[in-house]
Amino acid sequence: MNNQNFHMSPEEFRKQGKLMIDWIADYYENIEKYPVLSQVQPGDIKTNLPQSAPTESEPMEQIMADVNTILMPGITHWQSPNFFAYFPANASGPSILGDLLSSGLGVQGMLWATSPACTELETRVLDWLAEILQLPEKFKSTSTGGAVIQDTASSAALSAVLAARERKTNFKTNDSGNPGNLVAYVSSQTHSSVEKAVKIAGIGKDNLRQIGVNENLAMRADLLEEAIKNDLQTGLIPFFVCATVGSTSTNAIDPLNEIGQICEKYQLWMHIDAAMSGTAAICPEYRHILNGVELADSFSFNPHKWMFTNFDCNCFFIADRSVLIKTLSILPEYLKNQATESGAVIDYRDWHIQLGRRFRSLKLWFVIRHYGVNGLRYHIQEHIRIAQQFAEWVRTSAEFDLVAPAPLNLVCFAHQKGNDFNKKLLETINGTGKMYFTHSVINGKYVLRMCIGQTNTKEEHVSDAWKTIQKTANELIISE
Amino acid sequence: MNNQNFHMSPEEFRKQGKLMIDWIADYYENIEKYPVLSQVQPGDIKTNLPQSAPTESEPMEQIMADVNTILMPGITHWQSPNFFAYFPANASGPSILGDLLSSGLGVQGMLWATSPACTELETRVLDWLAEILQLPEKFKSTSTGGAVIQDTASSAALSAVLAARERKTNFKTNDSGNPGNLVAYVSSQTHSSVEKAVKIAGIGKDNLRQIGVNENLAMRADLLEEAIKNDLQTGLIPFFVCATVGSTSTNAIDPLNEIGQICEKYQLWMHIDAAMSGTAAICPEYRHILNGVELADSFSFNPHKWMFTNFDCNCFFIADRSVLIKTLSILPEYLKNQATESGAVIDYRDWHIQLGRRFRSLKLWFVIRHYGVNGLRYHIQEHIRIAQQFAEWVRTSAEFDLVAPAPLNLVCFAHQKGNDFNKKLLETINGTGKMYFTHSVINGKYVLRMCIGQTNTKEEHVSDAWKTIQKTANELIISE
Repeated sequence: MNNQNFHMSPEEFRKQGKLMIDWIADYYENIEKYPVLSQVQPGDIKTNLPQSAPTESEPMEQIMADVNTILMPGITHWQSPNFFAYFPANASGPSILGDLLSSGLGVQGMLWATSPACTELETRVLDWLAEILQLPEKFKSTSTGGAVIQDTASSAALSAVLAARERKTNFKTNDSGNPGNLVAYVSSQTHSSVEKAVKIAGIGKDNLRQIGVNENLAMRADLLEEAIKNDLQTGLIPFFVCATVGSTSTNAIDPLNEIGQICEKYQLWMHIDAAMSGTAAICPEYRHILNGVELADSFSFNPHKWMFTNFDCNCFFIADRSVLIKTLSILPEYLKNQATESGAVIDYRDWHIQLGRRFRSLKLWFVIRHYGVNGLRYHIQEHIRIAQQFAEWVRTSAEFDLVAPAPLNLVCFAHQKGNDFNKKLLETINGTGKMYFTHSVINGKYVLRMCIGQTNTKEEHVSDAWKTIQKTANELIISE
Repeated sequence: MNNQNFHMSPEEFRKQGKLMIDWIADYYENIEKYPVLSQVQPGDIKTNLPQSAPTESEPMEQIMADVNTILMPGITHWQSPNFFAYFPANASGPSILGDLLSSGLGVQGMLWATSPACTELETRVLDWLAEILQLPEKFKSTSTGGAVIQDTASSAALSAVLAARERKTNFKTNDSGNPGNLVAYVSSQTHSSVEKAVKIAGIGKDNLRQIGVNENLAMRADLLEEAIKNDLQTGLIPFFVCATVGSTSTNAIDPLNEIGQICEKYQLWMHIDAAMSGTAAICPEYRHILNGVELADSFSFNPHKWMFTNFDCNCFFIADRSVLIKTLSILPEYLKNQATESGAVIDYRDWHIQLGRRFRSLKLWFVIRHYGVNGLRYHIQEHIRIAQQFAEWVRTSAEFDLVAPAPLNLVCFAHQKGNDFNKKLLETINGTGKMYFTHSVINGKYVLRMCIGQTNTKEEHVSDAWKTIQKTANELIISE
């Protein structure tokens, strides 16, 4: 640090930056030594942080010492190979470096003009992904559509709801407000972010229908059509369906083709939320999970979940970009510029809720180039193979049952001793810090979820986890 | 890279990470050699990027070579000391390192339990900021309110509009949809993000009143009250006002006290958007810009604009957190956990639009500790001093006029030769790459904006800019 002006000098940045790189490398080399789920109690971390900001500059060595002693006990280690909770948020070396470059460049890509490379790299890389996922041409920038990096699948779902709302009301809701008769459809297994989006958009939860599911927990298209017909008969205006590829609770996959045909028939917007599982479609043998995507108006998945790209990175594809842009465009005088007026460029600020935007495509570009498509496929295939192995262990176990089909990398299971036992089993294991997994409730049944998608998770981690689960269950039974 | 499994090995990460740190340090040491505004044409960057993703892994050296040759010409250098456009998005060494640590840890802080340190550090650091800014107690986590880091002031404004909407309608809009009679108020100078928020929230632009401004371009409280009364008389329900501290066009400051009293009288939500200028209030001599904040329901400013914290980092303060949480809360089974159920913790996913969230408080904590409050104040004071110096040069110039008051670090001015000339002057100078500034239009007048807030901007950069502006104007006059 240069004391004269408080800024960090280039020499100090080089020194501290290299120490930080080593800190991170050390962290990954030692990550299995930490309890996966932080074992602190509420308030433990805050208590150790001063009540007021320092008046004078503090050395970086002191800050990093506090990271080690104060913060680290409060970290839940999402990058641990023993993290099987929720959906993963996996990172990788090239992603961290791409994100570092983004922080270093510090550009703000709201307009093409505010950094053309930020916009054009994003467009190109998302076209790459459209090709790798074998999406229909309409989702490419070279056709009627295109794609944008958003922060999360929640924001993508909100953008889809808004574009659908405007298309259905001839863009009048933006002016006059929500007309009060629009109705949206999800299944009982759809992610809660769509309910949140419907509330935010002024549609209201009462105008969101939860369609029933079949035995595989996938949306029943016949019930969807029935609900749409009922609503039409009472004068309501169905406008939006969210279909899910890989539901959060059980990885259920909705019937895209049937839903898409209904959407076409009744002119509803079809959004596909494939937040985690969409990545599997980069492998030819799993591409079938997206059959029917050609009928969708929008599609989103998160490389920050299962494609080694650190949070946040959601890819939101849209079939007709003009609808999205018309829905979200604002153009105050202070943002006008020659390039925008020429119409020859994309200004991504019109593709999402926010105005400002970070150079997120760098990390995605680094990841795709570092791994190559073959490298990405290899790891996704491995994760699915290991998950299927785990499912097989459960299937052949005398005490545990599979609770839902495991089409990809998420296995839902339960001990036969019932809900209270399973809850206790989960909490006991997570309390050891050896591994971290989470639960859901399916038809009143408390279900344990093992999601296998961490960058460094190998078969040995999953077999150790299985041993821990079996052993702990036996111990709990004995101690009862 | 380890060819066996495609992942980057720890050794390779250490090597490439240190090279990246040096790349960034070199970049800052040479940043003034680049044209500030990228001079490429639409499509120039994309053309040089392959049409398809690589099948096989590519070495990091090749990726960085492409960064240098393909991407760099397409970068507009927001971190250049000669960047005076829009509002700044300034970064710093400690911020880049804090963000790197966040990428490395790769935690997802949607719930307290998913990394207690991510939540508790954020709460603590935002309480620090409330104290530094001398915000009323109600905005602290230890009182009825608290704060959260959001991505941008746009998302904060949307969150405020939604909380206001729900409070006014007894939380019924979330269920039943927008009732159609809610009305929001901004001034003609309020940032366009509030209009976007009102559209998103299903209120509709027709229900957004643009209140007139005084000669300083600040909202006229008398006209605001008049508009509210008119709307009440016609049976509409006024619910929200956005007051601005430092408007985007001219840094105008709305009369918070008067607006706040009207909001109290008619029970409207008062949101304060202080996106860039809020930072000035950390200096005791400029704290007066926030006088009246004690009447506000919410307040937001962006350390990613003018407090050396790289994008994205908006701080959104709320007086009554229970309203915000009730507005944005969702609790599906798969997110339930003991800590949440205990009620003893903050789950920040209920404080914003998104579910997932990055560990953003690290970079803010690094910045505040590295600079100390005194270091931050020093640089803000310097920026304002230099901006006032620039304003003085304009004031005493024979050819240029100040077009609006310059209360802080933004100077709006124009050459006396009129709109077409000023536009040509701006484009000519930006086309040289020597500096980058932008424009606005005020009462039909094309106005040049010099915003002084880049981390490394010193008086010499601004005096050079002033010479360039004068010289170019003279050359344009001669060549006419």
